[in-house]
Amino acid sequence: MIAGTLFEMVSLWVVLGIAVVGLIYALYLRQQIMVEDKGTEKMQEVWNAIRTGADAYLGRQLRTIIPLIVILTVALFLSVYIVPPSVEALERFEGKTPEQVKIIIGLGRAIAFIMGAMFSLMVGQFGMRMAVQGNVRVASAARTSFDKALKIAYRSGTITGMLTDGLGLLGGTIIFMYFQKAAPDALLGFGFGGTLLALFMRVGGGIYTKAADVGADLVGKVEAGIPEDDPRNAAVIADLVGDNVGDCAGMAADIFESYEVTIVSGIILGLSLVALTGEIKWIIFPLMVRGIGVLSSIVGTYLVKGKEGQERGNALSAINKGFYTSAALCLIAFAVIAHYYMNEWRAFLSVGVGIILAIVIDELTKYFTHTEHKPVKDIAKSSNTGAATLILSGLSVGFESTVWSILVIAATILSSVLIYWGQPVSYVLYGVAMTGIGMLTLTGNNVAMDSFGPIADNANGIGEMSGMDKKSRQIMADLDAVGNTTKAITKGIAIGSAVIAAVSLFGSYLTDVSKVQAQMGMESIKQLLTVGIRISEPTVFIGLLIGAAVPWLFSSITINAVSRAASLIVTEVRCQFKIPGLMEGKVQPDYKQVVGICTKASQKELIGLALMAVLTPIIVGLVLQVEALGGFLAGVIVSGQLLAVFMANAGGAWDNAKKLIEDGQYGGKGSENHKAAVVGDTVGDPLKDTAGPALNPLIKVINLVSLLAAPIIIQYNKFTPALTVIVVIATLVVIGAIWYSKRESE
Amino acid sequence: MIAGTLFEMVSLWVVLGIAVVGLIYALYLRQQIMVEDKGTEKMQEVWNAIRTGADAYLGRQLRTIIPLIVILTVALFLSVYIVPPSVEALERFEGKTPEQVKIIIGLGRAIAFIMGAMFSLMVGQFGMRMAVQGNVRVASAARTSFDKALKIAYRSGTITGMLTDGLGLLGGTIIFMYFQKAAPDALLGFGFGGTLLALFMRVGGGIYTKAADVGADLVGKVEAGIPEDDPRNAAVIADLVGDNVGDCAGMAADIFESYEVTIVSGIILGLSLVALTGEIKWIIFPLMVRGIGVLSSIVGTYLVKGKEGQERGNALSAINKGFYTSAALCLIAFAVIAHYYMNEWRAFLSVGVGIILAIVIDELTKYFTHTEHKPVKDIAKSSNTGAATLILSGLSVGFESTVWSILVIAATILSSVLIYWGQPVSYVLYGVAMTGIGMLTLTGNNVAMDSFGPIADNANGIGEMSGMDKKSRQIMADLDAVGNTTKAITKGIAIGSAVIAAVSLFGSYLTDVSKVQAQMGMESIKQLLTVGIRISEPTVFIGLLIGAAVPWLFSSITINAVSRAASLIVTEVRCQFKIPGLMEGKVQPDYKQVVGICTKASQKELIGLALMAVLTPIIVGLVLQVEALGGFLAGVIVSGQLLAVFMANAGGAWDNAKKLIEDGQYGGKGSENHKAAVVGDTVGDPLKDTAGPALNPLIKVINLVSLLAAPIIIQYNKFTPALTVIVVIATLVVIGAIWYSKRESE
Repeated sequence: MIAGTLFEMVSLWVVLGIAVVGLIYALYLRQQIMVEDKGTEKMQEVWNAIRTGADAYLGRQLRTIIPLIVILTVALFLSVYIVPPSVEALERFEGKTPEQVKIIIGLGRAIAFIMGAMFSLMVGQFGMRMAVQGNVRVASAARTSFDKALKIAYRSGTITGMLTDGLGLLGGTIIFMYFQKAAPDALLGFGFGGTLLALFMRVGGGIYTKAADVGADLVGKVEAGIPEDDPRNAAVIADLVGDNVGDCAGMAADIFESYEVTIVSGIILGLSLVALTGEIKWIIFPLMVRGIGVLSSIVGTYLVKGKEGQERGNALSAINKGFYTSAALCLIAFAVIAHYYMNEWRAFLSVGVGIILAIVIDELTKYFTHTEHKPVKDIAKSSNTGAATLILSGLSVGFESTVWSILVIAATILSSVLIYWGQPVSYVLYGVAMTGIGMLTLTGNNVAMDSFGPIADNANGIGEMSGMDKKSRQIMADLDAVGNTTKAITKGIAIGSAVIAAVSLFGSYLTDVSKVQAQMGMESIKQLLTVGIRISEPTVFIGLLIGAAVPWLFSSITINAVSRAASLIVTEVRCQFKIPGLMEGKVQPDYKQVVGICTKASQKELIGLALMAVLTPIIVGLVLQVEALGGFLAGVIVSGQLLAVFMANAGGAWDNAKKLIEDGQYGGKGSENHKAAVVGDTVGDPLKDTAGPALNPLIKVINLVSLLAAPIIIQYNKFTPALTVIVVIATLVVIGAIWYSKRESE
Repeated sequence: MIAGTLFEMVSLWVVLGIAVVGLIYALYLRQQIMVEDKGTEKMQEVWNAIRTGADAYLGRQLRTIIPLIVILTVALFLSVYIVPPSVEALERFEGKTPEQVKIIIGLGRAIAFIMGAMFSLMVGQFGMRMAVQGNVRVASAARTSFDKALKIAYRSGTITGMLTDGLGLLGGTIIFMYFQKAAPDALLGFGFGGTLLALFMRVGGGIYTKAADVGADLVGKVEAGIPEDDPRNAAVIADLVGDNVGDCAGMAADIFESYEVTIVSGIILGLSLVALTGEIKWIIFPLMVRGIGVLSSIVGTYLVKGKEGQERGNALSAINKGFYTSAALCLIAFAVIAHYYMNEWRAFLSVGVGIILAIVIDELTKYFTHTEHKPVKDIAKSSNTGAATLILSGLSVGFESTVWSILVIAATILSSVLIYWGQPVSYVLYGVAMTGIGMLTLTGNNVAMDSFGPIADNANGIGEMSGMDKKSRQIMADLDAVGNTTKAITKGIAIGSAVIAAVSLFGSYLTDVSKVQAQMGMESIKQLLTVGIRISEPTVFIGLLIGAAVPWLFSSITINAVSRAASLIVTEVRCQFKIPGLMEGKVQPDYKQVVGICTKASQKELIGLALMAVLTPIIVGLVLQVEALGGFLAGVIVSGQLLAVFMANAGGAWDNAKKLIEDGQYGGKGSENHKAAVVGDTVGDPLKDTAGPALNPLIKVINLVSLLAAPIIIQYNKFTPALTVIVVIATLVVIGAIWYSKRESE
């Protein structure tokens, strides 16, 4: 039993209560939205097509991944039979036999895994469904007032935000309250479930949305010269569905996963300080911070509205007002806790660094991707000499932006070193984890801002397709433009938080592996925390090389998937254009065909990629041992971060360079420059919305698998070094076979 | 004094003799070439323009870099006054006072630096001049016979090859013979000089050649629709000059640098084994291997010729015959040494792995970039849906290829672990160094094959511009096509060898830093070789992050430089097209203008980039200390390798996809598909010929600077930890200032 004061015990229950309040608030908002009007029949028709497409995608995705989830659940349960339960587990469940404890821990881990997966799925699915419910209502409300349209759009998004907050906090707190110092076992399962599902949603959604988007643009805007969202384009419904499954479901699941993983690593690293100091405050603090975040988000998001009866208003300033209110409330409350409860300021400083980090990354993203700054202007200018130079400028901008971004991350870690100067490394790692906690405190607001994007975008599309009047279309166009900005901001935060979360997990790996090593009887001077992960050891360096390669392989596969699916769509739509009467608008195209192509394409790579994420660390660990697996993790983090930010920002910059030209610069729409910019935008699409964002959950899945597999790897390395040779040979055979089959299939 | 048998002492002199023989052979070939006919007046006119342009570039580059070279020479000399001479140096120069030894070591280091720089410059300059001498003679010979044209082209290239071999081996051997166990000091200077010059030649040449190429293509082929090498295009001479300064001077200096750096790290790591075992054979072996390589190259390259009087022949098979002869001779001789002199097979195995590595990397490069394999076919196919999908396919292929390539490198290091199983890590590192020695043994052949490319290309250009007859043009076109293949093969080997060389330098860093630490009185258990470079330490992880970012920043800058210069060229040529009579061929364009633009553009970034390469490791080392600098080096190597191969192969694949279409597939020349492929090729050009190759010397410059600065860093860290804070603040101010000035300049 972990000892704590009465205040601390009550605090835990209060945090749990706050999580539930967050969820209730989400339900309350849902009710508010559902009673709103859904508009004309024509609007509902379009909306129905989107809804059906989205449901079909989610249903199919679920069927694809369920077998893997089942296998992993069983594997997680059985894993306790390979490695005996930890000393902490035996102490926590004192009075039970080791056999019983084994079953409790196994079940805990398996159930937590399912819980993580379910929560992530719920956030994604429910959030997306609410977005779909919201968009038609926004379109309908736009017929009467700006204020109402904004409110519906933002609150529909807030529902997802509160779900993210509520479920993440609920899961983490419950697990800790039940398992206490044995919590890491179950927490890792919880984290793994969430990240794995997020990976699925991100990859599937990302491929879907960009295949549809690229395909629709190539064949519609570029080839046939018809506008975006033109109902004659058979890919247009798939494109709208894509906005939901990618930007909404994918992004929400992704942020949920970062949110929960920062809690998981916060608690694990907190526990290591509890063991050092005997004080439970290291764990109560992050949970309190998150609880405060939920309350502040509720207040802040509720404030977002326009002036009643206004025709056009500034949606962005309303949204920002909400955000800053939440932020101010948080900071005050954190200071109170630091002073009165923690009796020290270091944890507060770490959390504060997280908030600063979010702001700096936001500024960086803006600088490199917004139309008013030099990089995007340069890219647009380079369209004077054609698509090739435009692509090159964008690559150059993307490369540079990722350098600044990683320097900021480095500075963040350095600040943790400085804050905990002279303390053992466990404190520094805890500081990094608290930075992650701080950075994602206002997840409620962030997700609301992000979901707002596709909701406004879809409302706009419904408006276009159902031929609404000009005034209401203008309102929706304004909201849509603001949505693009808020979406971009969230993307920056998602990536930044991903790497901070990953670094905390990397820290957890160190402390966790050392704990296991200690319990397996290894001397303290041989444990990972003492020895360190030495890239000067050849095998560790090899791990680093392999790890750094993984994000590149992953990106290669996802980019290729988009490009292939987009080609299929182009062929299909080209074919449909030939249907007599279609181009005159007399005959409707067959939207379902294209929806089908996207759905199929987005599922095809899922299992392979997931297996890659799960198996690579296990193989590396078994063959090269735990220290090299640490090198592998570092490689994945470094290279993943560099690649992810490069792809996100290059894509964003090309997108906005195109917008700059469309706004009339360098020849405007239809010019040769514009054509060049469209090429750039199309290249950027799968980079920024498929490959880049999918790296966030990938990095964390790999880290969590390593943490889960570490005890087994240590056990295996200890007893059966001879088997290693077999694994090496088997691996080489597999790689050889893949290579051979690739050459054969030409 | 290092003890060795009489045989060993004689061997050293023999190796030295062989190096001189290599150089004499180069002079002999030069004489052979120079007596050949230079063709018609018209041909010589074109040739003169190329020659003048090339000379102007080299002259200007030299003026740009000389101040930096002077400063660095002085700094290297003075560095001995910060750190006392090593114990080895005092022992080597027994009988001299410490003051005297200081001066000897300082002078040695400074002179070796100049020697390295001079040699690198000579290889580049002399090689390029020979290529320019060769190309017009090839064109002239093509009027009479295939055999003669091939022989002149290949032998002109061989001159550069033998210079590379001869000078590299000469420098390394002389330094070792004079300084003996104090050799590392001077060797590092030698390596640094060579890599730094190579960096200049690579970056300058790369920017020059691709700015000219991209500019000429964009404005000529794409805009005006005139063929490549059309004399009406004002950029055409600059383009031909570019082939020489980029593919010839840049590549030769780059390979020279890899060649010498593998010797440097081979001797340093060999010395650490000498210290362990007392046997000098660990150093004699790599020098012998290299000596044998020179002799084999002489024999093999001499065999390259066609059948006399033949009209068309298979140049590639003749070149390959030469290569395989050299390789066979080498392997036999290595086996003899291993058996009779080394009395063990491990070193032989390591060298053999190097040869296998060269072959495997060659195969990988072929698979991902050649027209007959799936990746390039897929890219060409994706041109059906336009430039955007073609770019995406290429990115996907490039991403994947770099994964395979890094896995091969990882396997190479693993094989060294297995060969030296159970031995201290110094043996494993030595094994990696020997792999580098093996991989570059046949540098004479490789450079000859590489230089053959631009020589044939230029001959073809001279033929086109001087209006030669069809039969001789066909001979040159055949040679040109073969040249493209041989160039690609060498590029793969250059990149592969770069990372192996860098890993050996990383290994040298470990042993060298530990040695210095020991001499400064640090306990053995605190030395780097014992402690290792632990990325689990937050500062080391920060080092890793920063290091991994450097290649991205570097690539961003070089790509941008090309894209900017190409725009200037397009504007200039567009302007010249308007000169009355020019398009009718009555008036010659002003070639010099474009040559001037390229020369200027290629110098502009040199100093900044060089300072970045030199100062970053020093700052990281001073602020974060030597262990973190190790993390930084690992980051540079991993991320540099991934980025370099990605860029090289994506570029190569786009290039060949274009060729596939030009050969008649997917609509052939002039089709929409072809236009898309031209965009891909143009994007790929600066990636594969500027940014990618420049990373090779960059990685090594950074490693060598770290090695040179390590003693100072250790000294500084030991005595003045307080100053660190000042350095941190200064660095932040500098970064902030850069950032601010960037925003201001918008």
